[in-house]
This record gives sequence, structure tokens and C-alpha cells, in this order.
Amino acid sequence: MVQPQDMQKEAAPAPAGEAPISKKAEKKNARAAMKEARKAKATEAAKRAIVTVTNFDEGQYGDMVMVQSASKSSRVWTRIETLNASAAGSKIWLRARLEYVRDAGKRAFLVLRQTPFTIQAMVAEDAETPRDMVKYLKKIPLESIVDVEALVNVAPNPITSTTQSDVELSIAKCFVISAAVPILAMQVADAKRPLAEDEAEEKQENDVSMPTVGRDVRLDNRWIDMRATANHAIFRVQSAVAQYFREFFLQRKFVEVHTPKLISAASEGGADVFKVDYFGRPAYLAQSPQLYKQMCMNGDLHGVFEIGPVFRSERSFTHRHMCEFTGMDFEHEIYEHYHEVLDTLGDLFIYIFDKLNENNAVDLEMINAQYPFGKLQYPRKTLVLSFSEAIQLLKAAGDLEADELKDISTPQEKHLGQLIKKKYGTDFYIIDRYPMSARPFYTMPCPDDPRFSNSYDVFLRGEEITSGAQRIHDHALLVERALANDPPIDISTIQSYTDSFMSGSPPHGGAGIGLERVVMLFCGLKNIRLTSLFPRDPKRVTP
Amino acid sequence: MVQPQDMQKEAAPAPAGEAPISKKAEKKNARAAMKEARKAKATEAAKRAIVTVTNFDEGQYGDMVMVQSASKSSRVWTRIETLNASAAGSKIWLRARLEYVRDAGKRAFLVLRQTPFTIQAMVAEDAETPRDMVKYLKKIPLESIVDVEALVNVAPNPITSTTQSDVELSIAKCFVISAAVPILAMQVADAKRPLAEDEAEEKQENDVSMPTVGRDVRLDNRWIDMRATANHAIFRVQSAVAQYFREFFLQRKFVEVHTPKLISAASEGGADVFKVDYFGRPAYLAQSPQLYKQMCMNGDLHGVFEIGPVFRSERSFTHRHMCEFTGMDFEHEIYEHYHEVLDTLGDLFIYIFDKLNENNAVDLEMINAQYPFGKLQYPRKTLVLSFSEAIQLLKAAGDLEADELKDISTPQEKHLGQLIKKKYGTDFYIIDRYPMSARPFYTMPCPDDPRFSNSYDVFLRGEEITSGAQRIHDHALLVERALANDPPIDISTIQSYTDSFMSGSPPHGGAGIGLERVVMLFCGLKNIRLTSLFPRDPKRVTP
Repeated sequence: MVQPQDMQKEAAPAPAGEAPISKKAEKKNARAAMKEARKAKATEAAKRAIVTVTNFDEGQYGDMVMVQSASKSSRVWTRIETLNASAAGSKIWLRARLEYVRDAGKRAFLVLRQTPFTIQAMVAEDAETPRDMVKYLKKIPLESIVDVEALVNVAPNPITSTTQSDVELSIAKCFVISAAVPILAMQVADAKRPLAEDEAEEKQENDVSMPTVGRDVRLDNRWIDMRATANHAIFRVQSAVAQYFREFFLQRKFVEVHTPKLISAASEGGADVFKVDYFGRPAYLAQSPQLYKQMCMNGDLHGVFEIGPVFRSERSFTHRHMCEFTGMDFEHEIYEHYHEVLDTLGDLFIYIFDKLNENNAVDLEMINAQYPFGKLQYPRKTLVLSFSEAIQLLKAAGDLEADELKDISTPQEKHLGQLIKKKYGTDFYIIDRYPMSARPFYTMPCPDDPRFSNSYDVFLRGEEITSGAQRIHDHALLVERALANDPPIDISTIQSYTDSFMSGSPPHGGAGIGLERVVMLFCGLKNIRLTSLFPRDPKRVTP
Repeated sequence: MVQPQDMQKEAAPAPAGEAPISKKAEKKNARAAMKEARKAKATEAAKRAIVTVTNFDEGQYGDMVMVQSASKSSRVWTRIETLNASAAGSKIWLRARLEYVRDAGKRAFLVLRQTPFTIQAMVAEDAETPRDMVKYLKKIPLESIVDVEALVNVAPNPITSTTQSDVELSIAKCFVISAAVPILAMQVADAKRPLAEDEAEEKQENDVSMPTVGRDVRLDNRWIDMRATANHAIFRVQSAVAQYFREFFLQRKFVEVHTPKLISAASEGGADVFKVDYFGRPAYLAQSPQLYKQMCMNGDLHGVFEIGPVFRSERSFTHRHMCEFTGMDFEHEIYEHYHEVLDTLGDLFIYIFDKLNENNAVDLEMINAQYPFGKLQYPRKTLVLSFSEAIQLLKAAGDLEADELKDISTPQEKHLGQLIKKKYGTDFYIIDRYPMSARPFYTMPCPDDPRFSNSYDVFLRGEEITSGAQRIHDHALLVERALANDPPIDISTIQSYTDSFMSGSPPHGGAGIGLERVVMLFCGLKNIRLTSLFPRDPKRVTP
């Protein structure tokens, strides 16, 4: 039986018989020693005898010349995820990464991976398998890409360490297609363990033999980090969320738009905008498609959506801010009341959540195995509380800072999430009628009290994932509000936008949703960087 | 019968009895006079008596106070596209733009539009309809948004000037929800006529009474321009193309990715890159997701796609270049030969074209009505010619410049398109095995002749819509080619990218497709700006 967990046995023991050292230093030493041991092992591994072959019929094993499209065969290539006991007895070709090798004398046990699926394989010295082949296989660097011809056998006992539990492979041929270097910047096996900071605080800190990888090393080597089962699954979930978002709106005949990211003025009244050199003139990166979505309303697209990058030049180093993220925006005409948009939002998220639970259960389970999370609780009818009601909840719970005319802080949002979960049993809710002071100039004021606005935020597990509002569609009021902004907005910088309301504008509203935040909070992840392939913050703009 | 074409009668006649003037000056004068007449008419129209109402039950007509979500009614709102003779006799509520009004004494004929659908409506002075209401309706500025309560009647004769030909409305109530200014920067009716430069050259130039709108005026007032039927349809087609692209890859279990647009180095070896101020350091806008797609291959995503903005700081003013456009990119692992990617490309485009013809026939017909085009010819099996074969075709047709070791020019591409259409009867084809000199450094050279490369372009009607290749997955060769680039690429600027090939890399290839170009060329449009909501070129960065 292959036991990838065996690797930990190779870690160097903690130094003994010395003066007492701190627990922290002890851990550090243990890690350093382990690193050395790994390095030594890897260097040893590098001393493999390289056998080069130029085609699949040339011998049984070796390093294949670079796949340069010199020929095509009629070979049928198998996907690991399709392999189960029904394939027993068949001979197959497989391309996979070598995840793990265990030397067992005349035999070697391997784990082959087509991320995230894994299968056990073995090779044994016998009449058809020369000793040199077994030796060669044992020395292939981990993570190399190999092509294997193998016989599928039923596993005598269920294999719990691979995703395919009822079959194993007996290798007949094995060629290295792309060799990894012997010493990788990080190990996939280590990436499969959560960062300490991402774990529950009560976690026992006594397993120094199980190294984890720091966030920076992971992100600097994302192409290795993302091979870890949970990380890999996060990006399938992200892909699915965006598609469900689109499906929902395409079913309603919305039009997908692509609005410009290069714009001529820092248009939304804020700072936090990146400046670009546009053929010698200044231009800026759009902080959202807001103004353009509205011009599309004035252009009669009726209902639009967009999924694209948005840029924020904010010096924020929180667990949930990035300088570039993926905005899922929509905007649609309303007839009488902006609650038509709240209905859309409620239906949208229930659609996305239902579809995730229906279609992505395997991905979610893979994430859950590394980053445990409770299943999202959401009722069939979305809870909508007014901002004033939310403030009352906070006040009743002893929050003396809560003020119905001021936006709430991140800790207050978290606290509110707990109170709502306790009272209403939901992780998903909408807060409506925000104070005007907390919203941008183009937000429609409430008809009954201009200190409030026809605006709303959507929350998941106590964190905001969406902001939206009815927008002002009246030209005079829009200009008035822009001038009353603090600081006042120079109308000449948004002239096209305000002009577009002079040729007749349908009442409308919409919202902008952070894709990465939806993924993070649906899965109860602790850091937004887990949900971005190549996250950007003030310190990170590479890779 | 409403006849929007009547408007042309109101154009001022050309000045008579004067010294002969040039045809050009004559046209100019006629236009100026018409402009004046329009302005005068609009100013007159502005002198309407404004009646303000605060709710739908207050009288029969008037300007409604701003829709600020003060109340909700149980009113059912009808969409024009659903109205046909089966609705005759029913009373409905409708929100629409006022496209056209014709004064007929005690009556007025209107065209109401929910872009792109239109319906005829009339109002007549009678026992239930006061004279002032008819007068009020006649003076509503065109393009205003109105709410109308009306009776649906069967039209006595088919109405050819509206999309709903068998019904007309009899207006009972009419409220202006958002009034347009009386003088718009351009007329929707004019936007419905093609630009001279977009038309066939043989077009008669004698219709000075039918004004067209110049490209800059259109783009400066895109929210009006896009209300024109054909322009509106172009964006539905654009939305559909992107969705078919995604459907195709999601069916094959590809993962949609969102790679960063802010990058730390001008990484693709070229100039033409926009520079950004990233917290005091320089950063750049990605010219494509190329390097990131490949890092995703090294991260085992197996097959990825992305639809997002790409940025090119090129001083190009052609009909087909923009500084920001929408890239549809994909990349996938290959087993033995990059022709696996060509198979993907052939299948992909046939899928997109078939779906467009199946599902978007109405949109395509709307485009065709303003910008006539021949239906795209494409066989079930995609034609693939080698670059050398293409050069032979050009040479045989007398092109002395054609050289199989040099890239072909835009006119040569056009010419080649004509030759291929004639010989093979297809508007859609792939040219394979480009000379290495014409491709970026990461392109895999051909195994049999390093002067050529495992790369290809896809063409529609003689213009390139897609470039792609097998990419080098071997670290040593990749670094070698980067250094051999002219000018040599500083490896430190692409260190993460090249490093990612050291941990095992699967052979792979892919392509980048210009969304706007696909729409432009499928529909035989003459300028890429028609297919971008807010196009960007070196002179245009607004709106």
C-alpha cells in the first residue's frame, strides 16, 4: 500500500540532549533540519542515469525527447478519473504527474496524478521488467510529467490515499515527458496542508514534522501551489460561480457587455485610482463599470451584465482587499421600485448557491477537506433588513457605537452577521436603505427621507459581497448631487456620463459583486488571496 | 398609417436661382438648412405646456414626478415584442421611448419603441380624450420615456414601419417618465442609416435629404447611436459569441480563469505596452493573458479559457485595430501534436457560427438590413492550408512579393482570402506553419525545419481573427529562445514564467481570439468600432 504520509518519517528528529530551547526555536530547527534532509535526498535523486528515447516504441522506459509534434499516433489516452474496477484487465496509456514514489526494494510504488485525481501504480522487477527500469522509475523527480503504459488491476483492498480507490496500475512502460528539477521551491504535499493563519485557532500546534508553506512562497510559486487538491478545486468553483451568474442573466435576456477599462478621468469621485500613460496623456483604470453600465441603460440595452477586472489603488492589506479583482456587475431597468433589483439579487444568489451545491459537491468537498467550513445556510426567501433595523440589532447587543446615519465598520458587520445568524438562521441576507453619507453621488436618495438612500449591500457570513442601488436617472438631480459631493466632482470629467441622461433615461438599478469574495465566503475561506490565481496588493504585482 | 419616412419631407429644399455651386457645397448647404429647420422645430416643440402628475391615477396625462421608488403598484407591464393580434381587445401598460410623432389634426400617430421592437400607437380627440391631451402628446420630445395605458387593436392593414405589424395601440393615458431634451446631439432615425464609408462604393450619393451621422458624433453619443436597430443587434450578437465560446469550453470541462491585467514587466518582448503607476513603481497592462495561461498549464488546470480586456499601446488607425479589445483566449494540454489545438479551433468556430445562425437569425437580419452582408460560407471540415501553400497561391496569382519565410501583409491576406474563396468556397480557414520570424519567442519551432513554427492563424473573409501556436514547454529551450529574441529579452523580467517550466510542464498550445473581430467579420462589417461599445484608439479614450 502506498502511504504518502510516510514522507513525514523522513523528517529529521528534533535535536535532543541540549539545553532547553524555546518551542518556537525547536520548531524552527526541526524545519531547517528537515529542509536539509529533503535537499540531500533530492540531490541524491538527481543522480539518476538518464536514458533518452525518441519514440514510444523504443524500449520500455527513458526520458522522451521534447514533444514537438513530430508525429501522431493512434494511441488512446485515458483520464484517471474514468478509471474504476470496470476497467480491470485493460491496458491503457496515461499521461500524469509523478506525485509520489516509494522504494520497496525490487518494487516501487507510485502515485500518479492528473490533478486532482490520483491513482496508485507499481512496478516490480520480473521477466518483463528489467532491474534498471525499476531503478530508473525510483529516481524520477517528483512532479515530473510521465507517459505510462499500464495494466489496470482491481485493488485487493480499498486504497484510501488516492482518489481512485478500487483500482491500481501495473506499469509496463514509462517515459518522462517533462522532468521537474529535483528540488522544487515548495512541495505539493506541503501545499495540501493549510496555512496556520487560515486554520481554526484551536488547532494543535505540535506537528512540526508536517511542514506548511507560507503565503508568499505559495503565491511566488502559484503553479505548484495550485496543484494542491483544495486550491485546484477553488478555481473550478470560481469558474462555476461566474458561469451560473451569466446563465441566470442570459435566461432573462440580459446582454453581456465589455466596457472600457481605460478611461479619461478618475470618474467616481474617489482617489484610489491607477494612472496610466495614454500616448503622453493621463488616463485611468476603471474602478468599476458603473458609469458605463448606466450609459448602456440610456442606450436601451434594458438589462446588462459584465464580468471583468476592476482596479483599486488602495493601500489595504486586509484579508479581503485586493488591488485588482473580478467584478460581476449587472444593471437593469426598473418600473416602479428598486426592490425589483433586490428581487433579482435574491433570485440570483439562490440560483448560484443551489447550482454550486448541486453540481460542485465534489469540488466543495475537496476544499472542505483542507479548509473545513460549515455549509452555507440560506432560506428560499432572502432576508432583507433595513439599515435601521440592523443598527437596532447591534444596539440591542450592546454596541454603543452603532449609528443609523453612519456606515458600519468591518467588525460591526461581523458582529451583525452573528446576531442575524442567531436570530434568523441565515448566512445570507441583504441590508437595505443605507445612509446617504455612505454612498456614491449617483445613488438615488430615499423618497421619504433624503438622509437615507435606495441602496443595499449583500452579505455572506457577516462580510459584504455586493453593493448596489437605484441610480439617479434624472439629469438635473445627478448634476446637483455631483456638485454637492465632498469634494465636489468636476462635471467636465464626467460630461459624457451626465449628458447621456439628457436623451431620456429609464429608471434603473443594479449591483457590483466581487467574484473572489463570493467564492471566499461561500467556502468560509479566511483570505481572499486563496481565491485569486495571481493576487495583487500594494506589495505584490508579480508573478 | 404612420410613416416615419415622412420626416424627410420636412428637410429644407436646396437653394435655387443662385449661381451654380458645387455638388459638395450644395449638399453641405442642404444639411445646414435641414439642421436649422430641425432646431427651429425642436425649439417650437420645447414650448410645451408641462403638466406634472405625482401618480398614475392622477388624470390621463402629464410629466410624472421622478420615479424614486415611493410606491409599488400591482400594474402588469407589457413588452412590445410579445404583442400581436392575439392580444387584441386587452388593455395594457407599457413603458417605451417615443420614437416618432405625426400630427394629424385632432389625432396624433406615434411610434413607441422598446429597442429594437416598435409598435404604432394613436391618440384621438373624443369624449374620453380631451384636446389638451392630444396637444400634450404631440409635444413630447422624441426619445423621451413614456408610460402608456392603451387598448390593443388589430391593425386594419399590415404596418410595415414597425416591428409589430398586425397590431396598433389606442392610447388612454400617457405619462412622461423621463423627458429628452428637444434637440438631441444626433437622431436615432439618422443613426439607422449607414455611414457612407461603411457602405458599398456604388451607393448613389444623391440623397442629401437623408442625413447620416459621422463616426465621431456617433461614438461621442453612443447611448443614442446604439438605439439604432442594427447597432443594438450587434451587441446582442457580441454577447452571444462570447457565451457560445464559453459553452464550448465548459462542455469540455475547461476552467475559466481571471489572470491579472496589472503586471510587473512588459513581458512579451514587444513595445506597445501601457505603463501604469503602481504605488510609485512602474507596472504595465497585459497585452494578452499568454504567459499566465501557460502558468495555469504548469499548474495543472489542463484546459483554461478567459474572456477579458487586452491592451495594446499601438499608434494604429486602421479599420481593425483598437488599443483595448476583448480577448477570448484558451490554452490546453496536447498529447502528441499541436494539430489537437487546430481540431479544437475548427470545432469551436463551427460551434459558434452554427449557434449564431440557429439562435440569432433575427439579430443578424437586423444588422443585415442596415449593413448588408453575405452569409458566411464555412464547410463542416475546416480548411487548413500551410503557410507555404498560401504563398504558392499568392505567387500563382502574380504576387511577386510573397515569400514563404516572411509574414504576409494585410493586403496580401485580403488577396489570399479572395483566392481561397474562389478555389475552396470558404470564408473561414486556418493557415498553419508560419515562418518563425513572424512569431513570438515562446512559439515551438517545427521539428523538421526550425525556420518554421508550430503556429497558425485563423481567418474570416480574408482577415485574421485568431493567432495561436504550440508553446515551448521545455525550460532550457524557452530561455534560449528568449535570449535569441531581437532584442534579447531580459530573463529577470519573466523569471516567474520561465521558472514555472522547471517543475514539470505538459506540452500545450492555444490561441487568442479577438471578440470584436469575430463579430465584425462574421457580419461583414467594415470597421471594428461598430462592434465595440466605447472603442479606444490613440485619439479616443472617452466616453
